[in-house]
Amino acid sequence: MRGAGKAVVLLSGGLDSATTLYYAVSKGYDCECLIFDYGQRHRKEVNSAKRIARLRGAPFRIVKFRMPWKGSALLDKSMAVPKGRRIGKGIPSTYVPSRNTIFLSFGVSFAEVIGASAVFIGANAVDYSGYPDCRPRHFRIFNELVRSGTKAGVEKRRIEVLAPLVDMTKADIIKLGRKLGVPFGQTWSCYSGNRRPCFKCDSCVIRAKGFKEAKVTDPLTTI
Amino acid sequence: MRGAGKAVVLLSGGLDSATTLYYAVSKGYDCECLIFDYGQRHRKEVNSAKRIARLRGAPFRIVKFRMPWKGSALLDKSMAVPKGRRIGKGIPSTYVPSRNTIFLSFGVSFAEVIGASAVFIGANAVDYSGYPDCRPRHFRIFNELVRSGTKAGVEKRRIEVLAPLVDMTKADIIKLGRKLGVPFGQTWSCYSGNRRPCFKCDSCVIRAKGFKEAKVTDPLTTI
Repeated sequence: MRGAGKAVVLLSGGLDSATTLYYAVSKGYDCECLIFDYGQRHRKEVNSAKRIARLRGAPFRIVKFRMPWKGSALLDKSMAVPKGRRIGKGIPSTYVPSRNTIFLSFGVSFAEVIGASAVFIGANAVDYSGYPDCRPRHFRIFNELVRSGTKAGVEKRRIEVLAPLVDMTKADIIKLGRKLGVPFGQTWSCYSGNRRPCFKCDSCVIRAKGFKEAKVTDPLTTI
Repeated sequence: MRGAGKAVVLLSGGLDSATTLYYAVSKGYDCECLIFDYGQRHRKEVNSAKRIARLRGAPFRIVKFRMPWKGSALLDKSMAVPKGRRIGKGIPSTYVPSRNTIFLSFGVSFAEVIGASAVFIGANAVDYSGYPDCRPRHFRIFNELVRSGTKAGVEKRRIEVLAPLVDMTKADIIKLGRKLGVPFGQTWSCYSGNRRPCFKCDSCVIRAKGFKEAKVTDPLTTI
């Protein structure tokens, strides 16, 4: 299926963004991926993202930047990644200030240049770590910003940020991903970059709960 | 005067952002500057910004990134910078898609980490090139985004984007800058990076008109 036009897909290497790419392709979008190299604790994320883009046959671009102020356990190796915390209580130290806003701004810039009508982001606000920039409201306001602050918006060419997974449970995302053929074994969710996931950080815990509820085996549990 | 708290000032090396820094300091803000190295056509801008921060005694951080899709005459040396065009007619090829949104997102991220309550930007929507992300509406919506999408916003700690020059004419900005002691001779507005400004690009034309109307001599005309 083709014909929905061009789209930019923000790809992190995780389960959600991989599913989002496969979803966007299934909806007929001609997808170009954007991968961010922003000083993550490990290279596994970026490498996973590249592999997933290649497997789905989507070209990708890498945007590299550093935030010298860090301010997040995901960027600062001297901060510990919380393990075994009660998810849902507060915003954890893995929160990266303005991350999604920065990512989306680059995504919209790229979309404007290649003439894409959509920027897909795999954010989810159900089974998630409580990051405020993953909520539907954030994307609604961001879309207003795009209409007001871009040449495309002024000229009434639509560029829309779409977060198709935002209201889904992790189990539903996994079921959708399985249906679309997402290579779960190539995705990486763990905040650590060891050979195997730690199974203790928020990201691992949320992923494991999702696979369990979806009654699907996570290929990463058998490596 | 001190006591307004910390602020982040986005510094480009131009006249407007330099005046904004001097203004923020005059209002009692303890300022830290953010300078962007994003693949501009020349190094003069970044070097001017550094000099201005040092002259005002404000620390600075540099954020370096590239947008591999370019899409602007300011980033793509194979595109010509328009000269002698009628300013006010349309959005010129020097427009950089999402630039201010990207800059502000980094600014808010930095502000959140250092506990700043304001992010100053020297944008102007009167004597300007018609960039849609320089208009007051863009900053109003961006402030909504900050309230919804940051930990600071969720916790009701205010971070506000302030564009104090947005409704001023270039002549008024120059008069204000002169009062505040802005070193105009250290600022750089020209889109080209030659020894002397070209006096023909939008940025030079707008600057010259401002100095003329303010009845001030631009020190750059005598180098």
